Amino acid sequence: MASVAIIMGSISDYETMKGAEKVLKEFDVDYEIDVVSAHRTPDKMYEFAKGARDRGIKVIIAGAGGAAHLPGMVASLTTLPVIGVPVSSRLQGIDSLLSIVQMPKGVPVATVAVGGAENAALLALRMLSINDEKIAEKLSEYKQRLEMEVSAMNLKLKEVCENE
Amino acid sequence: MASVAIIMGSISDYETMKGAEKVLKEFDVDYEIDVVSAHRTPDKMYEFAKGARDRGIKVIIAGAGGAAHLPGMVASLTTLPVIGVPVSSRLQGIDSLLSIVQMPKGVPVATVAVGGAENAALLALRMLSINDEKIAEKLSEYKQRLEMEVSAMNLKLKEVCENE
Amino acid sequence: MASVAIIMGSISDYETMKGAEKVLKEFDVDYEIDVVSAHRTPDKMYEFAKGARDRGIKVIIAGAGGAAHLPGMVASLTTLPVIGVPVSSRLQGIDSLLSIVQMPKGVPVATVAVGGAENAALLALRMLSINDEKIAEKLSEYKQRLEMEVSAMNLKLKEVCENE
Amino acid sequence: MASVAIIMGSISDYETMKGAEKVLKEFDVDYEIDVVSAHRTPDKMYEFAKGARDRGIKVIIAGAGGAAHLPGMVASLTTLPVIGVPVSSRLQGIDSLLSIVQMPKGVPVATVAVGGAENAALLALRMLSINDEKIAEKLSEYKQRLEMEVSAMNLKLKEVCENE
Amino acid sequence: MASVAIIMGSISDYETMKGAEKVLKEFDVDYEIDVVSAHRTPDKMYEFAKGARDRGIKVIIAGAGGAAHLPGMVASLTTLPVIGVPVSSRLQGIDSLLSIVQMPKGVPVATVAVGGAENAALLALRMLSINDEKIAEKLSEYKQRLEMEVSAMNLKLKEVCENE
Amino acid sequence: MASVAIIMGSISDYETMKGAEKVLKEFDVDYEIDVVSAHRTPDKMYEFAKGARDRGIKVIIAGAGGAAHLPGMVASLTTLPVIGVPVSSRLQGIDSLLSIVQMPKGVPVATVAVGGAENAALLALRMLSINDEKIAEKLSEYKQRLEMEVSAMNLKLKEVCENE
Amino acid sequence: MASVAIIMGSISDYETMKGAEKVLKEFDVDYEIDVVSAHRTPDKMYEFAKGARDRGIKVIIAGAGGAAHLPGMVASLTTLPVIGVPVSSRLQGIDSLLSIVQMPKGVPVATVAVGGAENAALLALRMLSINDEKIAEKLSEYKQRLEMEVSAMNLKLKEVCENE
Amino acid sequence: MASVAIIMGSISDYETMKGAEKVLKEFDVDYEIDVVSAHRTPDKMYEFAKGARDRGIKVIIAGAGGAAHLPGMVASLTTLPVIGVPVSSRLQGIDSLLSIVQMPKGVPVATVAVGGAENAALLALRMLSINDEKIAEKLSEYKQRLEMEVSAMNLKLKEVCENE
Repeated sequence: MASVAIIMGSISDYETMKGAEKVLKEFDVDYEIDVVSAHRTPDKMYEFAKGARDRGIKVIIAGAGGAAHLPGMVASLTTLPVIGVPVSSRLQGIDSLLSIVQMPKGVPVATVAVGGAENAALLALRMLSINDEKIAEKLSEYKQRLEMEVSAMNLKLKEVCENE
Repeated sequence: MASVAIIMGSISDYETMKGAEKVLKEFDVDYEIDVVSAHRTPDKMYEFAKGARDRGIKVIIAGAGGAAHLPGMVASLTTLPVIGVPVSSRLQGIDSLLSIVQMPKGVPVATVAVGGAENAALLALRMLSINDEKIAEKLSEYKQRLEMEVSAMNLKLKEVCENE
Repeated sequence: MASVAIIMGSISDYETMKGAEKVLKEFDVDYEIDVVSAHRTPDKMYEFAKGARDRGIKVIIAGAGGAAHLPGMVASLTTLPVIGVPVSSRLQGIDSLLSIVQMPKGVPVATVAVGGAENAALLALRMLSINDEKIAEKLSEYKQRLEMEVSAMNLKLKEVCENE
Repeated sequence: MASVAIIMGSISDYETMKGAEKVLKEFDVDYEIDVVSAHRTPDKMYEFAKGARDRGIKVIIAGAGGAAHLPGMVASLTTLPVIGVPVSSRLQGIDSLLSIVQMPKGVPVATVAVGGAENAALLALRMLSINDEKIAEKLSEYKQRLEMEVSAMNLKLKEVCENE
Repeated sequence: MASVAIIMGSISDYETMKGAEKVLKEFDVDYEIDVVSAHRTPDKMYEFAKGARDRGIKVIIAGAGGAAHLPGMVASLTTLPVIGVPVSSRLQGIDSLLSIVQMPKGVPVATVAVGGAENAALLALRMLSINDEKIAEKLSEYKQRLEMEVSAMNLKLKEVCENE
Repeated sequence: MASVAIIMGSISDYETMKGAEKVLKEFDVDYEIDVVSAHRTPDKMYEFAKGARDRGIKVIIAGAGGAAHLPGMVASLTTLPVIGVPVSSRLQGIDSLLSIVQMPKGVPVATVAVGGAENAALLALRMLSINDEKIAEKLSEYKQRLEMEVSAMNLKLKEVCENE
Repeated sequence: MASVAIIMGSISDYETMKGAEKVLKEFDVDYEIDVVSAHRTPDKMYEFAKGARDRGIKVIIAGAGGAAHLPGMVASLTTLPVIGVPVSSRLQGIDSLLSIVQMPKGVPVATVAVGGAENAALLALRMLSINDEKIAEKLSEYKQRLEMEVSAMNLKLKEVCENE
Repeated sequence: MASVAIIMGSISDYETMKGAEKVLKEFDVDYEIDVVSAHRTPDKMYEFAKGARDRGIKVIIAGAGGAAHLPGMVASLTTLPVIGVPVSSRLQGIDSLLSIVQMPKGVPVATVAVGGAENAALLALRMLSINDEKIAEKLSEYKQRLEMEVSAMNLKLKEVCENE
């Protein structure tokens, strides 16, 4: 059973959102993935959001661009934590970012960076880790991998510098 | 029967939105006015928007601030023209403006200036004037009044300049 | 007889504005299309705007970029509803958007998203639908098509995900 | 034992951050509150962040303004979910918002609106509700209270309008 | 006979524009001053701009705020140099500035700082000085006065610092 | 003898600034053109600016990008009118625009659009036309050519539309 | 003999710049302070900047607002390190910041936060500390005082929270 | 022994940061270069920053993009001067710039232009030149080279213009 739902406003957002999918796969966490448009399928969005908790979903990741209403509207229809991913736009995603993050008092959306789908998944995992030792442990290992990546970068940097 | 509906996300928006009310009163056009919040009363918003045309509403004016989803969501739930009024915010209304105007293809919102509630009403009247000669005439008179206002300003300017 | 006029400040704006044309054709609504420049043909603009209502035009769609004065100036010369389309520019269209939307009290322009020519046409159709049942019906069908598009996107997403 | 930690970069941020405190009190959730400055007490910050999970903290709420590094740095030192609250600044909080939300791949911060401390607390509660039925229930009740608030606003709006 | 015309979109702009008046008075240059609104008195604006050169006007200073079309429209109706003064607005004058300065190829507006009415007058004087030795001389004296102002500031600074 | 001086901060600005050159050539107005850098050749800039009027220069056009100090510094060293051209930059020219236009009281720069070198030349010509009938006439003809360009655009638009 | 020079474009900037003075006094470092305007006293600025190193100045702190050219111009006339302080403006100091920081290759300005005069002085002290053990030590003490300030804030926060 | 340390948040920043390396090589100043990530290797960053002065480092150059915390965090852990280089990002580096420059009182970062790695090195050299005559002299020569570059540009400009 999926514990994370990834939704996006349009199939064109998948180019960005697949970053979230990839991270969840790496962590072996079940997810569902769906196009749900606030503006084109408002009824479907209602149904999706209202049924999510009962269906066993624990965290929702929602990506959208421009006047990005999907994350905020879903957050208003559920009490689950909703993570918003601003998808880049004609205005470089500043419109997406502000439409997602500037939510009024009462209905929060956990917003990540413009295009930050991987971080959205990692944030979902951190939330799940509150009560899931295994995920917590995997997050620690992931943190160590990040450190090792930097060590590898340093080796490469040394190489590049010497060859210049 | 009301032909224009004025809605707003919070009572605090009324300070701005009463500008629309005043103009409609001047033009003797029936309206209804309501607080409908996309985020706090999503169900009411659905009901409102889906029933608007059948109830005889012809134009909807929706004011909201911050991550302002009300105008766009209402526009996605009706085929009536929806006018969005960005209400000023901590970020001077730039977030409100972008969340309202940057709608994706398929669902337009007729956006006016930050705080432009009077213009929202005048825009509604222009829409109604397409098939209402009386309103068209009143708009012409209003246009003449704008001109006369400038003449009055000029008299005052002459006075002020002389007295300096 | 055309009921919608599409005008633009330069032929280079046609790349954007043809989106409006396409939508009107789909809806079988007669339109006229013209280059009218506020800055290069101010006299033509006056004539155009002042004569539009008498010529039977019901809604004007005006696209312009940079210091985009065409929509606002036309709105000041007619009482018809004017829809402004900010055309993208060196500054990504932020200048176009602000020059169109930030109109002073008295003269509204119904502004759509940067590059949002299709939505400008859909907004014009919503206005016409106030008194035109047929267009109202077609808009409902269009809304259903939007929903179906999302269903199609979902099928495609499922496919893409499985193949990864 | 506290399950939420509220930290802030300076005592001057408390004016904003007490909004989070108030919500947690309403929900009867234990919290600790502390000034921890990324730039003035980097060692304390390290200690705080590294020890948080073992001390039983489940979610960290961190508020900061200007070049706001506290939320991101804390997130890099723990695997708990970290919620960032951009505190308003000379530049209206745009600098705070971007310094908090634009985190690189690997280290997410759940960002809320500029000044959105109440929402930070509500977001923490949503995270806790994943495994806490009681909090989930209280969040549902809170959602209903939001709806009732709007009803109350409507009564007030009707009054105001009649008296004008 | 006036050689400079100062126009503004509304009497409320006079608070800003009187700075231009004051400078022209200091330099003993005749000017006329008028409220001319692009949006409320488009016909008057046409008449004003088309007749300006023949009436002996040599430079036009035009102040406006928000979607500030006055300077650009006047520039499109005359071949005289037009100086645009962005008047501050809800968005701090960024909208005014961009609507004035971002003119398309063919129709220039000489834009000064937001609220820079004094500089608009000084710029007009610099233009007149091309063929007017007396004004050129006065501008040199003015430049010397600016230098002396800084000397006076230094004396004052020394005083303030000693007393602290 | 040159009556217009075109200067730029770097040879890379010539790509933009040659637009000014082309217009002056069309109008048969003598000009000089030079790389003068505020930051790399401050002494040369002083000499250039202080000697310009005596050398017969009537208008200075200065293009620069980024922290663009050339137009303002030249304006502080002469009493001639100085036209500033913001050259596009990593930040799309917003930094160039603000560094040029936001001059303090006392020292104006006549700023044109980002990349607006042609308009800078046309503005210089408008200034010269104050006392030069021939240039004034040519500007009128130019204005007519702009109108004719739009007519030509319309013919082309008709063609394009028919063929679609 | 002064080793730090504090200059500013106008006496009105002293309100901001006195923060730098205060820090230098605390650290017992000799300084000189002066109004030097790039635009009103360009000759004085040249003289100041070109003579600074020979006069024994080691670091220059320059504050300016709007189109802030002082720091960059001084940096182009000396090889000493120049620290730029963007003074807040009508546009909240964004124009000041960009005009100071976006210097072209070859002439750097060490830019601090909008209004950050204290930090400008602390940065000057860090530079001096490269070869001055005593200042290095005082900076370590200052760093400890910052930590203690946070401890004091925490005591106060505890008090405030208990009393609520 | 290295007197300058160049660090960067990721190997992808090297494309920008090698500009600093090149300048230091030209000036024959010893440097070390390293990838140190605030978010991925916080412990390494602590160690690096705390040990820098004792290791003989005199100036630290730190490049980072997005929510760029590296320069500010390093500055909080040392009393050496730290130069921050905002690396361009999805938002054109505005986020990087603001996260680096807007540091709170107490902990300064000497910020240069977006992508300004060469200037970061030149600024480091200016700092070192306070007590190093040889570097001071080389900086004077560099300044002369900048002047000569402009002379060369002028020759090339003359050529280009003639050939057009």
